[in-house]
Amino acid sequence: MSGENAPETGARAARDDRREARRELESRYEVRLAGEGGQGMILAGVILAEAAAVYDGLNAVQTQSYGPEARGGASRSEVIIAKGEIDYPEVTQADLLLCMSQEACEKYYGQVKEDGLIIVDSCNVSRVPSHRAMPVRITDIAERATSRRITASITALGLIAGLTGLVTRQALEKAVSDRVPAGTEAVNLQALAAGFAEAERLREELPEMVRG
Amino acid sequence: MSGENAPETGARAARDDRREARRELESRYEVRLAGEGGQGMILAGVILAEAAAVYDGLNAVQTQSYGPEARGGASRSEVIIAKGEIDYPEVTQADLLLCMSQEACEKYYGQVKEDGLIIVDSCNVSRVPSHRAMPVRITDIAERATSRRITASITALGLIAGLTGLVTRQALEKAVSDRVPAGTEAVNLQALAAGFAEAERLREELPEMVRG
Repeated sequence: MSGENAPETGARAARDDRREARRELESRYEVRLAGEGGQGMILAGVILAEAAAVYDGLNAVQTQSYGPEARGGASRSEVIIAKGEIDYPEVTQADLLLCMSQEACEKYYGQVKEDGLIIVDSCNVSRVPSHRAMPVRITDIAERATSRRITASITALGLIAGLTGLVTRQALEKAVSDRVPAGTEAVNLQALAAGFAEAERLREELPEMVRG
Repeated sequence: MSGENAPETGARAARDDRREARRELESRYEVRLAGEGGQGMILAGVILAEAAAVYDGLNAVQTQSYGPEARGGASRSEVIIAKGEIDYPEVTQADLLLCMSQEACEKYYGQVKEDGLIIVDSCNVSRVPSHRAMPVRITDIAERATSRRITASITALGLIAGLTGLVTRQALEKAVSDRVPAGTEAVNLQALAAGFAEAERLREELPEMVRG
């Protein structure tokens, strides 16, 4: 019975999620990308914002805040995307939180909307502080696809876009190509494709996790 | 007579300007870097913020806002630096505006504090809309130092830090080395040094322009 229903449930969850992201865009959709220095959180934020604004015709604000934690090696990048003008540029309660480190997870999981999505890279996060968090082996997936762990942030972007429909795949591919270091475009597009593929797999197989 | 007085005036102007930037930091100092896509405004903003926060022990918020103008190729990056916490992350009236394009100049010169500093790259800006603007041939200086026009944004950072004392030279050198593409560290440090040298020259020779 569950065998019969699961695909339909997965497909419905997928439709619902995408509807959700689009509906949020009528006001604004807030993304927080959090990890450690060197994990590419800032580049990922810039790419996501440019995909939305330059290629998908939306408005976007992208922010890095550096306080004392920056000296400790933490890194966080925030992106707000909206159809209309963005009057307040700060993320308070995120619609989507990506945690690429344990510290990021513990620091930010409490600042997510009730129906928000928390994605953690379970290669780096062993203690997930919320049952709502969705663990994905992001770094492993990136490494399998490209042999380079540094591409994990790009895989994460594919995962986020695939799960939420926040930006189009085409826009994200263009923004990745624009922004990654010259000569690494192909490998980063592979990392991105692996993220989209994982999102597709999750939407089919684990609809209840996608729903948060 | 002016020959006798100029050096002393220049030195005094230099001291005053540095005192000014430090005093502003008690509250906050707002920088807007504006130009076109491909001129490195975002990277420059990230470097300035990281110099301040990671290496000079200050707080910083760094923002890119993308509206319809992003589709037209304009690019702007904003950095707020303060000793204390930064509660409102948006630049309204800048303390310092860098214009690397004519369009940027026309769009933003009106949003600068009365005693703020406007620096324009006179290689790219022919019509300077304010008598307060300080024209510097930034791209030429970068090209002479490194043979690469793309390093102009890094030269601009050296110029800004040299004129205002907003961040230390050591911090900026470290942040540049962290952030520029691997293999281009040396050439970018040359571009940075050229910016500091130009600031020194301006402070000696053109004190009245430095004062805005």
